[in-house]
Amino acid sequence: MPVNLKLAAGIAIDQIGLSPIAAGIKANGSYDLLLVHLPEGSTCAGVFTRNVFCAAPVTVAKAHLQSCDGAVRALLINSGNANAGTGQPGIDMALKHCDAVATSLGVKANQVLPFSTGVIGQLLPDEIMLNGIKQAAMGMGADWAAAAQSIMTTDTLPKLTSRQVTINGEVITITGMAKGAGMIQPNMATMLSYLFTDATVSRSDLQLALEQSVDTSFNAITVDSDTSTNDACMLVATGEKIALDPTHTDWSAFTDALNAVALDLAQAIVRDAEGATKFITVSVGEGATTEQCKTVAYAIANSPLVKTAMFASDANVGRLLMAIGKTELEDLDANAIRVFIGDVCAFERGGIAAGYTEDKGAAVMSEPEISIRVELSNGQAEATVYTSDLSHDYVTINAEYRT
Amino acid sequence: MPVNLKLAAGIAIDQIGLSPIAAGIKANGSYDLLLVHLPEGSTCAGVFTRNVFCAAPVTVAKAHLQSCDGAVRALLINSGNANAGTGQPGIDMALKHCDAVATSLGVKANQVLPFSTGVIGQLLPDEIMLNGIKQAAMGMGADWAAAAQSIMTTDTLPKLTSRQVTINGEVITITGMAKGAGMIQPNMATMLSYLFTDATVSRSDLQLALEQSVDTSFNAITVDSDTSTNDACMLVATGEKIALDPTHTDWSAFTDALNAVALDLAQAIVRDAEGATKFITVSVGEGATTEQCKTVAYAIANSPLVKTAMFASDANVGRLLMAIGKTELEDLDANAIRVFIGDVCAFERGGIAAGYTEDKGAAVMSEPEISIRVELSNGQAEATVYTSDLSHDYVTINAEYRT
Repeated sequence: MPVNLKLAAGIAIDQIGLSPIAAGIKANGSYDLLLVHLPEGSTCAGVFTRNVFCAAPVTVAKAHLQSCDGAVRALLINSGNANAGTGQPGIDMALKHCDAVATSLGVKANQVLPFSTGVIGQLLPDEIMLNGIKQAAMGMGADWAAAAQSIMTTDTLPKLTSRQVTINGEVITITGMAKGAGMIQPNMATMLSYLFTDATVSRSDLQLALEQSVDTSFNAITVDSDTSTNDACMLVATGEKIALDPTHTDWSAFTDALNAVALDLAQAIVRDAEGATKFITVSVGEGATTEQCKTVAYAIANSPLVKTAMFASDANVGRLLMAIGKTELEDLDANAIRVFIGDVCAFERGGIAAGYTEDKGAAVMSEPEISIRVELSNGQAEATVYTSDLSHDYVTINAEYRT
Repeated sequence: MPVNLKLAAGIAIDQIGLSPIAAGIKANGSYDLLLVHLPEGSTCAGVFTRNVFCAAPVTVAKAHLQSCDGAVRALLINSGNANAGTGQPGIDMALKHCDAVATSLGVKANQVLPFSTGVIGQLLPDEIMLNGIKQAAMGMGADWAAAAQSIMTTDTLPKLTSRQVTINGEVITITGMAKGAGMIQPNMATMLSYLFTDATVSRSDLQLALEQSVDTSFNAITVDSDTSTNDACMLVATGEKIALDPTHTDWSAFTDALNAVALDLAQAIVRDAEGATKFITVSVGEGATTEQCKTVAYAIANSPLVKTAMFASDANVGRLLMAIGKTELEDLDANAIRVFIGDVCAFERGGIAAGYTEDKGAAVMSEPEISIRVELSNGQAEATVYTSDLSHDYVTINAEYRT
């Protein structure tokens, strides 16, 4: 639903070099390889997919991030091929490509993190990658829009956003890019997102800030309940500007801006979800725990029957109840739960709400952005999840993806 | 996919009276109410949905089954309206309709179990129900095919099957009917299934046999991962013939026949799943526990990306790996897992299997019935789940259901 996609223009982080190219991994000649050159002194934090079949580049990136203690100097990202389900040959190839980047840029191999996205179960085209790396290393620039384009697969739009905060008179920039439109219910991270700042932040503080930020952004979205083998979200601090840590009075100004960038990108992924015609916010409140609220929110957000009703702009209260109820949470009381469609109370005291009419529900559902709110009457916890509808185009896109 | 639906013809259980009628709950004039009259001395066992928003008739049926100690004399089943999400007024109405059946048939009100299926969140039409009950009570017959038709909602075919076993020279019949095509991932039961036998079995033995049978049939199917508010599966023994219990040498002949009837019906639901073009068997073996195998099997069977690939006849090994891996089961070893498409090994030792080719996978996927087999190399447990694909027609049916 490109019409609703509103992203702030990307703002460059001065010392970061970007080189997006069309290496030839994708048959259609579009951008498919991005090399990111980070300045010396950068720190890097990352979260990765928990999928058991995590891809070769994920395995290598985690190992390199650890062994270089966050002192990452380059990110090598390709689209068109996920290098997942490829066993030891896949790992060997990811290592070989890190070596090639290291040689080209004059850094250590374990300071290079590889990332791949695309078709699962095929080896990367080795020669195309090696030639691409050489070419990319010679053309470093600052085209952030092209960089965001180069990591797309079934995305229809690049996802790039930025925030600035002034701390002690210094303007700090946080800029992020992401890709993803399907196989999206990230766990610990989304299908490739890269966040950058020019602040100075230690690796451990950066990791803390990233994990908190991801919890309410990339770990709060779902397109199809499917968790990718290649998800990764990285946060880089180049160290050009002011040093920040959690004891600094403006740390929360920094993390607020970081959270805003992450949420922008996560929501942009949902807005660009495969076949989406609606952007749906499911918020669950008055729960015993955040976990309970998130379980109920995901049950709604992932229900094919709720998602097809959304596609039809059908205010189908029954399907919302079904989805809430199928979670079987022991302490839920069906008679105490309230369900709102937009601002309209549709269900309370175990039955359809007194003032509710189909017309009121239908008016909310006809909009491209829909809010569903559930109050569990069970505590003080809250959680919000963002999702899209299930349309004919979702089926078409995923029935035809490999052909 | 009606072409593949093969059900044995229903065989009547002598002493059971059936009265399917068009009461007028459905606007289109088709059958929508079934009254089942059971002979005195019948025992009855049941399993019901675990959905928190379980429907009013489920609440009443559970209470009546308990208070009459299984000595059920009538089943009142309507389609077109689920009487779910209707609060106390819904319960009052279900109780009132049981009273009406009791009066008409000369049994006690707590010997009548009510069941409803259809739209959620609307009160039953009271007068239509009361008139329908009076009419139905006067027309008891033995038209099992019409009875199976009368409980349909989005089903395209009635589901009716039967088995006979000879025990001590007596022919024992087990006949069952079911309805369901969407909102199907039953938990403890499916969306309305009724199994009958003329054997003599105590309530507790009947309950045991039913629960075991449901585990590998109705609790092993999924269309869309959505658990209905109205699921119920009942097993009635009329007591006309030989008395059986678990110590009888032919108990397993009886339970085998029961399991076969339940599996027939459960598979018939999947074959008639909303929009289905494929019947998919997902079997997972060499697991540590049955629960682990079922978790992996359901992750595959419920993945929208796997289901759309099935619709496209696409042998997409990567999506199978993604679905297995997203279960995050701690003791799974990605390098030890084997994945088969039909009889063809597609994945082993962490990579695509040596002899595997796309052509071999495609040949299996082109068939209307597809088997996926996963071997976890983790133990001796097994589980099998049955599912359908995700097609354009599924979206169409569920985007238009209420309009």
